[in-house]
Amino acid sequence: MKHLISQLAHVEILTPRPNETLWYFKDLLGLEETERQGQSVYLRGWGEWFHHTLKVTEAPQAGMGHASWRAESAEALELVTRDIEALGLGKGWIEGDRGHGKAYQFTDPDGHPMEVFWEVERYQVPEHLRSHHRARPQKYVGRGAAVRRLDHLNLLASDTAPCSKFFIETLGFKYNEALAEDGTERELGSWLAVTGQMHDIAYTGDAIPGMRGRLHHVAFWQDTWDEVMRTADILRDADITIEAGPARHGISDAFFMYTYEPGGNRVELFSGGYLQHTPDWKPVIWHLSEFRYAGSWWGESLPETFFTYGTPPVEVAAPVEA
Amino acid sequence: MKHLISQLAHVEILTPRPNETLWYFKDLLGLEETERQGQSVYLRGWGEWFHHTLKVTEAPQAGMGHASWRAESAEALELVTRDIEALGLGKGWIEGDRGHGKAYQFTDPDGHPMEVFWEVERYQVPEHLRSHHRARPQKYVGRGAAVRRLDHLNLLASDTAPCSKFFIETLGFKYNEALAEDGTERELGSWLAVTGQMHDIAYTGDAIPGMRGRLHHVAFWQDTWDEVMRTADILRDADITIEAGPARHGISDAFFMYTYEPGGNRVELFSGGYLQHTPDWKPVIWHLSEFRYAGSWWGESLPETFFTYGTPPVEVAAPVEA
Amino acid sequence: MKHLISQLAHVEILTPRPNETLWYFKDLLGLEETERQGQSVYLRGWGEWFHHTLKVTEAPQAGMGHASWRAESAEALELVTRDIEALGLGKGWIEGDRGHGKAYQFTDPDGHPMEVFWEVERYQVPEHLRSHHRARPQKYVGRGAAVRRLDHLNLLASDTAPCSKFFIETLGFKYNEALAEDGTERELGSWLAVTGQMHDIAYTGDAIPGMRGRLHHVAFWQDTWDEVMRTADILRDADITIEAGPARHGISDAFFMYTYEPGGNRVELFSGGYLQHTPDWKPVIWHLSEFRYAGSWWGESLPETFFTYGTPPVEVAAPVEA
Amino acid sequence: MKHLISQLAHVEILTPRPNETLWYFKDLLGLEETERQGQSVYLRGWGEWFHHTLKVTEAPQAGMGHASWRAESAEALELVTRDIEALGLGKGWIEGDRGHGKAYQFTDPDGHPMEVFWEVERYQVPEHLRSHHRARPQKYVGRGAAVRRLDHLNLLASDTAPCSKFFIETLGFKYNEALAEDGTERELGSWLAVTGQMHDIAYTGDAIPGMRGRLHHVAFWQDTWDEVMRTADILRDADITIEAGPARHGISDAFFMYTYEPGGNRVELFSGGYLQHTPDWKPVIWHLSEFRYAGSWWGESLPETFFTYGTPPVEVAAPVEA
Repeated sequence: MKHLISQLAHVEILTPRPNETLWYFKDLLGLEETERQGQSVYLRGWGEWFHHTLKVTEAPQAGMGHASWRAESAEALELVTRDIEALGLGKGWIEGDRGHGKAYQFTDPDGHPMEVFWEVERYQVPEHLRSHHRARPQKYVGRGAAVRRLDHLNLLASDTAPCSKFFIETLGFKYNEALAEDGTERELGSWLAVTGQMHDIAYTGDAIPGMRGRLHHVAFWQDTWDEVMRTADILRDADITIEAGPARHGISDAFFMYTYEPGGNRVELFSGGYLQHTPDWKPVIWHLSEFRYAGSWWGESLPETFFTYGTPPVEVAAPVEA
Repeated sequence: MKHLISQLAHVEILTPRPNETLWYFKDLLGLEETERQGQSVYLRGWGEWFHHTLKVTEAPQAGMGHASWRAESAEALELVTRDIEALGLGKGWIEGDRGHGKAYQFTDPDGHPMEVFWEVERYQVPEHLRSHHRARPQKYVGRGAAVRRLDHLNLLASDTAPCSKFFIETLGFKYNEALAEDGTERELGSWLAVTGQMHDIAYTGDAIPGMRGRLHHVAFWQDTWDEVMRTADILRDADITIEAGPARHGISDAFFMYTYEPGGNRVELFSGGYLQHTPDWKPVIWHLSEFRYAGSWWGESLPETFFTYGTPPVEVAAPVEA
Repeated sequence: MKHLISQLAHVEILTPRPNETLWYFKDLLGLEETERQGQSVYLRGWGEWFHHTLKVTEAPQAGMGHASWRAESAEALELVTRDIEALGLGKGWIEGDRGHGKAYQFTDPDGHPMEVFWEVERYQVPEHLRSHHRARPQKYVGRGAAVRRLDHLNLLASDTAPCSKFFIETLGFKYNEALAEDGTERELGSWLAVTGQMHDIAYTGDAIPGMRGRLHHVAFWQDTWDEVMRTADILRDADITIEAGPARHGISDAFFMYTYEPGGNRVELFSGGYLQHTPDWKPVIWHLSEFRYAGSWWGESLPETFFTYGTPPVEVAAPVEA
Repeated sequence: MKHLISQLAHVEILTPRPNETLWYFKDLLGLEETERQGQSVYLRGWGEWFHHTLKVTEAPQAGMGHASWRAESAEALELVTRDIEALGLGKGWIEGDRGHGKAYQFTDPDGHPMEVFWEVERYQVPEHLRSHHRARPQKYVGRGAAVRRLDHLNLLASDTAPCSKFFIETLGFKYNEALAEDGTERELGSWLAVTGQMHDIAYTGDAIPGMRGRLHHVAFWQDTWDEVMRTADILRDADITIEAGPARHGISDAFFMYTYEPGGNRVELFSGGYLQHTPDWKPVIWHLSEFRYAGSWWGESLPETFFTYGTPPVEVAAPVEA
């Protein structure tokens, strides 16, 4: 195993309705604002030690601005960027952004914008949020859903296999679970991790022909299933769409709820699941014929939108009748 | 308010597959067997103080054998049976059954068999189940889902309104919630209680024309939402059908999961909700147009079977195409 | 059984630090303010349908202002006041207060001020708090601990037995659990209910000789154990004293946490427990020698203050050595 | 960072009462037995993929037989054994044991017996335990507490600092949290991880002078806080000592309960906490003066035995008065 990346550091999401999106993340989910710059606001959960893990940027369309990975060391940053460059996926270095130092920009094989960096800025807690709890970066104040931290990312890809290969072979990720077509064994989805989490990133096939580089969802962690359900109560009466759940996935064995933030991006509230620390792990393969267990373990069927909707959203032409 | 009935004492369910039904209730749900007699087995939850709350009886078809109410006193038993008799719904006295004394048999206006009694036999705990916890009738051993107690009953009726009226006016129940047709205000469902629970019995309309006296479900209580979800895990891998949930109802505000026991009867696992102690309570009215909130508060849609299936099951003729 | 009282309607607590007490109840526990009048503020939980359940009044010392019971009907109000008057415990009628009509004031045998009334004002929800959930009086917004409702009251008494007798014989309460001295069987505590709850009021012996009429605690309900523990997190970093728990009582079988609001009154956060609907229930008796199970079922020992502290607080002279 | 070890593979505990110890682990905690050999029984949790994670061996005294670490690869095994040998802590190779291949035995600087290996045997699920859930090695049947997996180990050391140094410098662990004496900054405890867990092993100072190589506890994971509390209910009425909790630690931010298995070893039930993926993490330092937050975050005081008892147990002479 290569050890080049240490974790998913932050995600930038784009929104055409920044005020409503910030209301969702700050008032409803309970993220804390670190700072603002230009058209962007930097946020983090109460349990996070870095400057930010979510960057919300105003844009004409919803979608993912970029995903940002932290390297495992300064040396690992040099190694991994060299390998990415050699694959022709590199775009070059930037000076950095609020919260981190110089970063190397690249795309995955499906065109999702990403970056990797090493130097990071720690969160500086203001006096009124200082906790007696030394293993917490700040007080737990319980505002809204009070999500603890960013968890993972799920991207749609026109073809997931090259993306999986890139993450496994070039970035050193473990291949933990997969969804495969019966018979052909074609990969329809992959769940990949560089940490002990079951996944830091997942790829699932984009159902809209010709689409590339879209976001399925970004996920935030809550400590207990009950907190996810408490969040459902808050969101339901705030007229936020709950697309699926709260329920339990087969894939990942985790507790989930999918919602749409007002800008249109799908956001998952996530808890539970399992840790995976086996370097020679053989991926768990779910076949499509087992989806009644894989999708929602207890049996709820996932809605059609779950398989077709991503951001940026796509106008799908009505089927033409013969 | 009249105070004639103290609580739902037990329910008898009928099953064509008694061994599998008992496996479901004893091994999976964790009920305790008190005794057997003839074609019947008497069961109770670990938190129940009476001889039994569930009687499982072998029969050609699934369905409810009878529902049994305990009166509030010996005097109340006399009063209530006199009133039932006056309505023409009475069937007469029986000597009693295992666990209780003489009982008056009757039907509700839709024909569901019921009884009311006063003298009851307390559960006698065997030595190996004796608890240090004096407010518990026995040890908590955690077998299977380890449901605590019977909670309530939901019956299908060809017309719910006369049943509601009977329970409210004759038996002294509170009318806590209702489902009504928009505009006409016709009652489509009623949730009624004689205790502080939100409902001890509910009536919902039978979607199959001409059907009378059918059971929608019998519900068992678990102390926490997490226990209901733990039960889902146990049932799912035991190949028991989970029809809906775990999720949260609008009506009753409670946490639910619907399953089918192997004999075919629908069984609910239930937790949470609210208590209602207001004697001059005005029923909460949900209109059918609000069913997306009333049925499953967080938004999951309930499956078609939830609205059509009851026991005894009915062969519905396939729609004839023109 | 008499049916004279329907429920505990509200409690008035006195505080020498009203601003801090209100911060505790509104910002930390998440109660909603209905209105203010004079030195009093009227509050309720998000799940409560009456005008208020907690009245916070500025006063030189902490303690209970009064406990207020709602009668079961206008007739029951007349009956119960006549009986109280006959016992010599009555103080006479008042016009009413914000949120309810005329009330009859009295004391229990230990001198705790109480009242009973019938006419009640329903909570009028403002537009911005209106919920899609018809079985909820308002939206769940999740502020702070977001406690749902008032649950019960625990009073200290110089002698609990006459108080228990008064509640059982005059007010028609059920005697659900008791703590008794081994051998003498002297009552050291009693847990009494008029609803199906395990207790609406409890009396425990005041350890300070000569003290009468003191408050042990007032308890608020949360829907899940996890919510009580979430509350612990919020309170701990807000520098609120957590005296005991979160843990599970033997007595009541419920999940508890005891805290002190800044004015000095003990407040319990409470969830779980069991319902009791048996009119001829024999009280569960715990002996003092079983207190390792009765007090905290899982074994945590309750601190000394739990047995000695009440409000108004008492200056206890240091023991004089011989 | 070195990447030599992938995870804590299993722990062997010694017991003078093997039948009762197995009753505790199998019937109460719900572990599955894989096989027996000689005086040993091999067990695993329902969520574990290896042959076993707990080996229970009959012995005259309670204590830890050995702790076993899996290397990250065959090469890593060679590297790490060379380094251990160079430190003079090595004992040499063994052929292996049930469930794994050749292993290198060593001790930590305090004398605790350990081993490291690479080749591992996967659990072979019997037909009746095969699950529809592909990301689970077997069905969840919910027997007893149904703990999911081994979590971590806490060892007592006469001096923790050399042990911490060995794990950090030689085995490549992260130093996540520490307990330090105020002023002197002497390390009193260390929490160390090679995975993303907050700790895979902890060292705390042995309060008994002259003692070396003792076990404080071995910890098993449960998915939810509610499951830990459910376990408390099961254990309490099975007359198993619950020493502390269920409650929440400051250190690790996790939910805990400490019990004694009948052989005398302390066993923790553990859930929650946080993941730590930062390679350049600065240890969180708790000072002894903050122990009211560090030990039990919500404020429960830990009993004296928690600080003095370990296995093998020690007869402590009564203090001699001058």
